[in-house]
Amino acid sequence: MVHVSSLPRNDTGIETVVGILRQRFADRCQTGRAIREQHGHTTTWIPNQPPDAVIFAETTEDVADVVRACAAHRVPVIPFGTGTSLEGHVNAPAGGISVDTTRMNRVLAVHPEDLDAVVQPGVTRKALNEHLRATGLFFPIDPGADASLGGMAATRASGTNAVRYGTMRDNVLSLEVVLPSGEVIRTGRRAKKSSAGYDLTRLMVGSEGTLGVITELTLRLYGIPEAMSSARCTFPSVEAACNAVILTIQMGIPVARMELLDAESVGAINGYAGLDLPVAPLLLLEFHGSSAGVAEQAEAFGDIASEVGGTGFTWTTTAEARNKLWQARHDAYWAMLTLRPGAQAIATDVCVPISNLAEAVTRSQARAAELGLLSPVLGHVGDGNFHNTILVDPDDAEERAKCDGFISWLSEMALELDGTITGEHGVGQGKMLSLVKETGGAASVMSAIKRAIDPDGIMNPGKILGAD
Amino acid sequence: MVHVSSLPRNDTGIETVVGILRQRFADRCQTGRAIREQHGHTTTWIPNQPPDAVIFAETTEDVADVVRACAAHRVPVIPFGTGTSLEGHVNAPAGGISVDTTRMNRVLAVHPEDLDAVVQPGVTRKALNEHLRATGLFFPIDPGADASLGGMAATRASGTNAVRYGTMRDNVLSLEVVLPSGEVIRTGRRAKKSSAGYDLTRLMVGSEGTLGVITELTLRLYGIPEAMSSARCTFPSVEAACNAVILTIQMGIPVARMELLDAESVGAINGYAGLDLPVAPLLLLEFHGSSAGVAEQAEAFGDIASEVGGTGFTWTTTAEARNKLWQARHDAYWAMLTLRPGAQAIATDVCVPISNLAEAVTRSQARAAELGLLSPVLGHVGDGNFHNTILVDPDDAEERAKCDGFISWLSEMALELDGTITGEHGVGQGKMLSLVKETGGAASVMSAIKRAIDPDGIMNPGKILGAD
Repeated sequence: MVHVSSLPRNDTGIETVVGILRQRFADRCQTGRAIREQHGHTTTWIPNQPPDAVIFAETTEDVADVVRACAAHRVPVIPFGTGTSLEGHVNAPAGGISVDTTRMNRVLAVHPEDLDAVVQPGVTRKALNEHLRATGLFFPIDPGADASLGGMAATRASGTNAVRYGTMRDNVLSLEVVLPSGEVIRTGRRAKKSSAGYDLTRLMVGSEGTLGVITELTLRLYGIPEAMSSARCTFPSVEAACNAVILTIQMGIPVARMELLDAESVGAINGYAGLDLPVAPLLLLEFHGSSAGVAEQAEAFGDIASEVGGTGFTWTTTAEARNKLWQARHDAYWAMLTLRPGAQAIATDVCVPISNLAEAVTRSQARAAELGLLSPVLGHVGDGNFHNTILVDPDDAEERAKCDGFISWLSEMALELDGTITGEHGVGQGKMLSLVKETGGAASVMSAIKRAIDPDGIMNPGKILGAD
Repeated sequence: MVHVSSLPRNDTGIETVVGILRQRFADRCQTGRAIREQHGHTTTWIPNQPPDAVIFAETTEDVADVVRACAAHRVPVIPFGTGTSLEGHVNAPAGGISVDTTRMNRVLAVHPEDLDAVVQPGVTRKALNEHLRATGLFFPIDPGADASLGGMAATRASGTNAVRYGTMRDNVLSLEVVLPSGEVIRTGRRAKKSSAGYDLTRLMVGSEGTLGVITELTLRLYGIPEAMSSARCTFPSVEAACNAVILTIQMGIPVARMELLDAESVGAINGYAGLDLPVAPLLLLEFHGSSAGVAEQAEAFGDIASEVGGTGFTWTTTAEARNKLWQARHDAYWAMLTLRPGAQAIATDVCVPISNLAEAVTRSQARAAELGLLSPVLGHVGDGNFHNTILVDPDDAEERAKCDGFISWLSEMALELDGTITGEHGVGQGKMLSLVKETGGAASVMSAIKRAIDPDGIMNPGKILGAD
């Protein structure tokens, strides 16, 4: 709760703009309480702050019209994809207009020769991959939710494939953006690389809607690998598992996924998915390549794992066995909820250099135990990124406070270990104070950029910046 | 010549600052003509505009002191690495102080477990790889020159390995930067990924010294692959070669290098390196991986090549044969010069989507022939990036004008084909007008960022922006 407060409202401006937008958008302008609350909703512990109206945009021109009306009357604009972000990104602490982009859901072009696709921001990652099914291509970035690609770009999302394919930072070639003035720009072209001026694409990726509304994306695609193999191995300690990770990466084995589940998480998925895994730290891996290549890679990992004390190493290339393993991983969130029925699950997110990963995870486990918090760990460990999922009783204020304290402590620990307060969830409202600690003087450069591009501060106010 | 002019000088300020810096830096402040001209030098057709003094910085504090003095008196600061950039980046069109970072040449830390290194900006790419020799790690980005890593970050450099390892954009984890105010910031941490606020690292990479001076870099490293193989294949046309490239990438063959030489370039290296290659479009490739993997990859490429009409496909894993091939590629610049003794070689740089590459290269060849210009083509074709190297008589004004016209025409053609005016050389002074054509309204966002971070315009003025 600590970091979230309301901001001053421009009630006159808001009233005027809602009137204008009602005229312009008719029943695509919605002001009912339920719809508004749904658009302030985030999958998080942060309280709901609904916008004053929701516009269901269908074109870039729709978005530009909303932004121009809001700019003229200094009213906040909050871009909305699927509302699956985790740090209060779509809340409206100063009220304003939520621009819902879910109807902008067309794949505009697929260029198989260039391995790219042009999409509207409301296309979800699964919808894109469905669309690509016949092409032999895929888009690899997979945050937990079936998020919209516009939202994924805005929050610099990643997921389990990042160790091989990078994050949204690496996979957006170009964006169309409606600036806070209502002007529409393109940040790049379809060429694979460019040295033409400042990297506005990367500036917009991760700006969480505070610099403009993304209305079109050009994304990198990849050929679906000829073969895939999955492997799993149990380790005597988190440290041993992390050592296997380090050696695997150092040897240049091009692992596509490398996920850590701590003993608590393994216990949870055993129960939920009817598995019988040893209740100890577990690595799940996936390899992409040729048939011979994925076999070789899995076996090379097996050698490394046994060197550092891993046991029960198995690997497979059959789709059924692979899917069973990864389904269990994907269901980990639901599995964890069964550990404490009625509890709310709060997903945290920090990322450290891999050499510090074992220490970070182990310290987080010790700290959670000390606080009496149930907090299984999942990690995209190839990147040094891990999540403590804290299971709290939403009605127990004391426990909630402990949980808040634990989250702040995790951020501080990550910084101490040369890491970052967020690997993939973003800052939103939840981590504004920690961001100042992480960035120091660089936060004022961010603020200067914000003021330069959005002088009236209408774009998604109360997110990322403003805590200092 | 067209795009380069002098800017108004602040003579009083410059005189004052040179006085201050002489006191502070003694013989590390140089004002002799030869040294100044060497620091305005660029490997290019752009005339020399020397700075008023050169400071040989040894520490971040040195750099900050220079910038603070310049800021107080509104005097330009021009960061200098090795002076091997190609578009007039180190010229001083308004005079000012060149900050030479070549003495900031220490590798500060290597973290083998995390695959990263922390370096000062004056470390060159070859010096870093030399330093890493015993670790089994390497840094892959290889522009033609043995450039400084600070300069490579500033210009968003890439080279032959970009198709596999990305460009400087992808391989800088974090920077220390002296801002135009003299304040020192860090843009990130050592974690492999982050969603903590605006991506200042990527904003600084490619900003060509116009937003600050890079004083420290944290770079990604890679394990030296267990095995490498090289392959070559001749094609009946540029189009056939490009089709092989497209299929190779679509199949997900993780090629590390993929270079195109047109018939003219092949002729040049035949003569220079005593080779006997068929004088026709040639692809040179390199594969990194396990012994079995690189064999499999080379053979898979061979199949593709023969499908599209390639001939004379050979591949090898022996270091000697590999080095001979790549040495010939690296010497292509010198080889081309022998095509027309006494001529100056002007390297151009555009990048297009791969599906448009054959058309772009073919059109560039036809246009050069039409203009009577000798202009062999080399390309990092896995990225769609290619260079026409124009051999001109420096004393023939008419030919120089034709060459200028050809370069502008190349940029326009790249834009027409959904590409960019520069894949890796940057904008500098040479491509400011073309940048406006490429970016449209986005250029004014770049200008707004420039004004926000450098309100007095002291950082490397007359580069990237200001042509509109």
